[in-house]
Amino acid sequence: MAMQDARTPENGSEPRKPGWHKGYVSGSRPDIRVPVRRVHLTNGKDVTLYDTSGPYTDPHIDTDVRRGLAPLRENWIVARGDTEEYAGRALRPEDDGLKHTSPRGGLKNLDAVFPGRPRQPRRARTGPQGEGAAVTQLAYAKRGEITPEMEYVAVRENRTPEFVRDEIAAGRAVLPANVNHPETEPMIIGKNFLVKVNANIGNSAVTSSIEEEVEKMTWATRWGTDTVMDLSTGRNIHTTREWVLRNSPVPIGTVPLYQALEKVDGKAEDLSWEVYKDTVIEQCEQGVDYVTVHAGVLLRYVPLTARRKTGIVSRGGSIMAAWCLAHHQESFLYTHFEELCDILRAYDVTFSLGDGLRPGSIADANDEAQFAELRTLGELNRIAKSRDVQTMIEGPGHVPMHKIKENVDLQQEICEEAPFYTLGPLTTDIAPAYDHITSGIGAAMIGWWGTAMLCYVTPKEHLGLPDRDDVKTGVITYKIAAHAADLAKGHPGAQDWDDALSDARFEFRWEDQFNLALDPDTARAFHDETLPAEPAKTAHFCSMCGPKFCSMKISHDINEQFGSDEGGTLTEEEVREGMLAKSREFADAGGRVYLPVAD
Amino acid sequence: MAMQDARTPENGSEPRKPGWHKGYVSGSRPDIRVPVRRVHLTNGKDVTLYDTSGPYTDPHIDTDVRRGLAPLRENWIVARGDTEEYAGRALRPEDDGLKHTSPRGGLKNLDAVFPGRPRQPRRARTGPQGEGAAVTQLAYAKRGEITPEMEYVAVRENRTPEFVRDEIAAGRAVLPANVNHPETEPMIIGKNFLVKVNANIGNSAVTSSIEEEVEKMTWATRWGTDTVMDLSTGRNIHTTREWVLRNSPVPIGTVPLYQALEKVDGKAEDLSWEVYKDTVIEQCEQGVDYVTVHAGVLLRYVPLTARRKTGIVSRGGSIMAAWCLAHHQESFLYTHFEELCDILRAYDVTFSLGDGLRPGSIADANDEAQFAELRTLGELNRIAKSRDVQTMIEGPGHVPMHKIKENVDLQQEICEEAPFYTLGPLTTDIAPAYDHITSGIGAAMIGWWGTAMLCYVTPKEHLGLPDRDDVKTGVITYKIAAHAADLAKGHPGAQDWDDALSDARFEFRWEDQFNLALDPDTARAFHDETLPAEPAKTAHFCSMCGPKFCSMKISHDINEQFGSDEGGTLTEEEVREGMLAKSREFADAGGRVYLPVAD
Repeated sequence: MAMQDARTPENGSEPRKPGWHKGYVSGSRPDIRVPVRRVHLTNGKDVTLYDTSGPYTDPHIDTDVRRGLAPLRENWIVARGDTEEYAGRALRPEDDGLKHTSPRGGLKNLDAVFPGRPRQPRRARTGPQGEGAAVTQLAYAKRGEITPEMEYVAVRENRTPEFVRDEIAAGRAVLPANVNHPETEPMIIGKNFLVKVNANIGNSAVTSSIEEEVEKMTWATRWGTDTVMDLSTGRNIHTTREWVLRNSPVPIGTVPLYQALEKVDGKAEDLSWEVYKDTVIEQCEQGVDYVTVHAGVLLRYVPLTARRKTGIVSRGGSIMAAWCLAHHQESFLYTHFEELCDILRAYDVTFSLGDGLRPGSIADANDEAQFAELRTLGELNRIAKSRDVQTMIEGPGHVPMHKIKENVDLQQEICEEAPFYTLGPLTTDIAPAYDHITSGIGAAMIGWWGTAMLCYVTPKEHLGLPDRDDVKTGVITYKIAAHAADLAKGHPGAQDWDDALSDARFEFRWEDQFNLALDPDTARAFHDETLPAEPAKTAHFCSMCGPKFCSMKISHDINEQFGSDEGGTLTEEEVREGMLAKSREFADAGGRVYLPVAD
Repeated sequence: MAMQDARTPENGSEPRKPGWHKGYVSGSRPDIRVPVRRVHLTNGKDVTLYDTSGPYTDPHIDTDVRRGLAPLRENWIVARGDTEEYAGRALRPEDDGLKHTSPRGGLKNLDAVFPGRPRQPRRARTGPQGEGAAVTQLAYAKRGEITPEMEYVAVRENRTPEFVRDEIAAGRAVLPANVNHPETEPMIIGKNFLVKVNANIGNSAVTSSIEEEVEKMTWATRWGTDTVMDLSTGRNIHTTREWVLRNSPVPIGTVPLYQALEKVDGKAEDLSWEVYKDTVIEQCEQGVDYVTVHAGVLLRYVPLTARRKTGIVSRGGSIMAAWCLAHHQESFLYTHFEELCDILRAYDVTFSLGDGLRPGSIADANDEAQFAELRTLGELNRIAKSRDVQTMIEGPGHVPMHKIKENVDLQQEICEEAPFYTLGPLTTDIAPAYDHITSGIGAAMIGWWGTAMLCYVTPKEHLGLPDRDDVKTGVITYKIAAHAADLAKGHPGAQDWDDALSDARFEFRWEDQFNLALDPDTARAFHDETLPAEPAKTAHFCSMCGPKFCSMKISHDINEQFGSDEGGTLTEEEVREGMLAKSREFADAGGRVYLPVAD
């Protein structure tokens, strides 16, 4: 799987001097090494940027998707002594959507089963009464402990470890890190940290192979996604996820309901707590870091969607609505929520409480169904938090600009500032094929107002399955939204990136502009298409006509305030002469507004 | 010049049934026929959309770029009796940047000189004292008159003619319509109307021909731009503009300073009022509808940019700054502003007062230089308005989200609600090659808060010259921003478009979705790439489980409020039986959440 990055020339011509290198910032101990992207400027300075691309962009690390990434966090997890390996659930054909063939028959590509190091799943040790220990970052934070994961994200975010701990303890941030996904580079999601981006991938029976999904994941992290959700349906779900997890440097999220539905042949009414629970445990053992759970879809909310323009558009939401209607009972996700908490707590899997009733059109935004569910998510958040399970809350969807802020404000109030994780929102329905843009607008705004993570939308939304280019476009658009939000929030240091790029632009340091760009390849290509290279230029305002002279002598309005050298005000004649002298100076110096300055 | 539209199949396959046709809405008289796009839905309904594409999309009109468009407004202008034809200024070689050759030598393509109908320029009749009449829509509105142009835009915007007149009279809206550009279909720019979009085109010596510029103009109007600015530099400026004007159904804006600078060989200090005035008259006679004038760049403001990250980034602004520094005087644009008003008034050319000191980076947003100039623009706006010249005010630029609203609020206060016309703003500097998106975010927000027109930014901003695809991407992105703003402002009827598309989406009417999309071609292509056609579906919430039953009987919380048929509350047993019955009903009806409904 060839990663395209700044180290690799894109064509057969002479290799370009790399514009950046992978660096590491050390923490308090040798095994805390936080990756960064160091951009080398032609003026000799370096700019350090957040890096999500994992070991793939480190030329000193030899990666191999068949072996998987090194288990970076394993020693930290083991050293805590509160987990143990166990035999784990036996793999079954239906985990991959297979019925009558051998378990591994029918898999596509990469020789199917992941060949990497053998592993047993790990979970919390059970206590004397059989109860599982809380092995979550939330439990540690509440106890006042600072884990290596917390210190790692503190370095990554330029915050103190204590600040990170306190945000997690308060439930204002989550650090998704399943004990069975030691390959992750810890990251944090919360409104007092950098706004994060999620990219969805996922195979479907029709179109994509395991290999393609793994490549989409590394490709998305290359462009800056902070987490990836694997929304695979159809066959090979289990095996695809194994490949993705073992090769992912970022947290992986899923919707277990999708796999559970496959296990009952797509019949929503045949779902049960038993099938669902088994699926959740299967995914916890594999290492999924967070799971979307649509536990807020209550039977009595379903009719509230009856008069909507677009009804229920969330796949999980409509599955649960169908189940509720079929049984005329509250869903097993709601009635078994506490048991579910106890399962997730044993692996440190984070809840992403799904908004199954999110609006799917401008007309349906902020309606009764949506906010009724949000209030239930608020209840569930309190339960999860009390049981030491990290929790974030999902949000819409389709919302016109003037109704966006209410979404964040309500969610923050109802869910006690738990991280908000929104899909867009799309600010208009009229532009299929451009919904990365309709939603990028909403995402930037909702990020500014306090949303912690933005789930991307690609140009193919509503129309088809995203390919590699769509994934890149989606990630770049959402990185723009997230960074615009960081700027608007006044996040410490966020503007340094803009400043470095604008300095380069003003000084015509083209190479620096490209290397600092979110997408250096495209910026360089666009430039090379039409514009010739321009000479470098150093810039500063002309020294002879500084602020003092001009503000004093040009304006008749303020003439009285300032004295001439002789202590009096200037006569008109003196002003005219001064102006003439300045005019000559300007001409003599070449008539340029900005002059080179040695600095 | 082949226009690609819904009437033309894109490849050699069988022609697709057209999804829309060009329609007209009539006003009070037969010569007021306002074009609309009528989208035909498969359910037999029509959706009517605003249409900027001009006669090119009317199959009953035979257009020819060599002949130009019909002079739609000519009779209205003549009938007013306040203008007269005159010999006009003689064309000179330097108008096209030529020195020593014959006037028409060196022109590229289309056989150079526009061959269409011969015409003489028209201007206001002079009165007994030699003063020019005010032939502006502003003058008519102030006198209480409703012109055919005003009625035309009233139909176009679903407003009353009186409302249109009053907005113009108050200076809150402009209707750019040079008496020498009778080909325009009248449109209006003001915060109480639909948010408008401008697309910039312009040749340069290096890359593009006259023919390409004319095609870019028609292409941009095809995708929805409301006005076009011709920012040509280098050679053939006059001739290119003639072709563009004679073929443009939308108002054309320019920056006369650019052409004036060519006439003095690019030496800013050699500019003078005389050269500038001559150029403005040249352009007024040709039919330019609005002109950007950087009259707010005062000598004393220039030093305020000294400590900026990116100094002066406006081309017009830096030309005027250089002139001011070279002469150490206030610019001729400022000192001759009243004379300039009198020229524009004689042709009804609208001012677009340029923000020459707009910020070119996040760091420079909302600084002293920017707002000092804005206050001067406020003064100039009052002068122009008092002289019956229509005026709008240009705005930035690069502004982080949290500083955007201050821009509109200040501009509206200082400039007495004159229409604000902004470039973006870009909400971050880090994404060259994606500045249509960084700025689309800001454009949507500033539109919501009261900006009347949004100047597009293409993906090539900062990097190169936009080609045809870039123009389309820029226009589509800005139409999204403008429409999102219309929705957020609660503009009457704006949401009808979203609703129609969302209805089609919910009912799986794919063809209707495509035909209603801002870009039907791309939406259809994306869909065809991966997704098979799905069967049509009519949707409505299941009738058996309506809101009443569920909200009454599901929730134990509200059980007490409602009586059973016998007048008492339901027992647990009754509830259980009712639920079971509902469950069976759901299964019997096919287990579908949404059922077909005849309606």
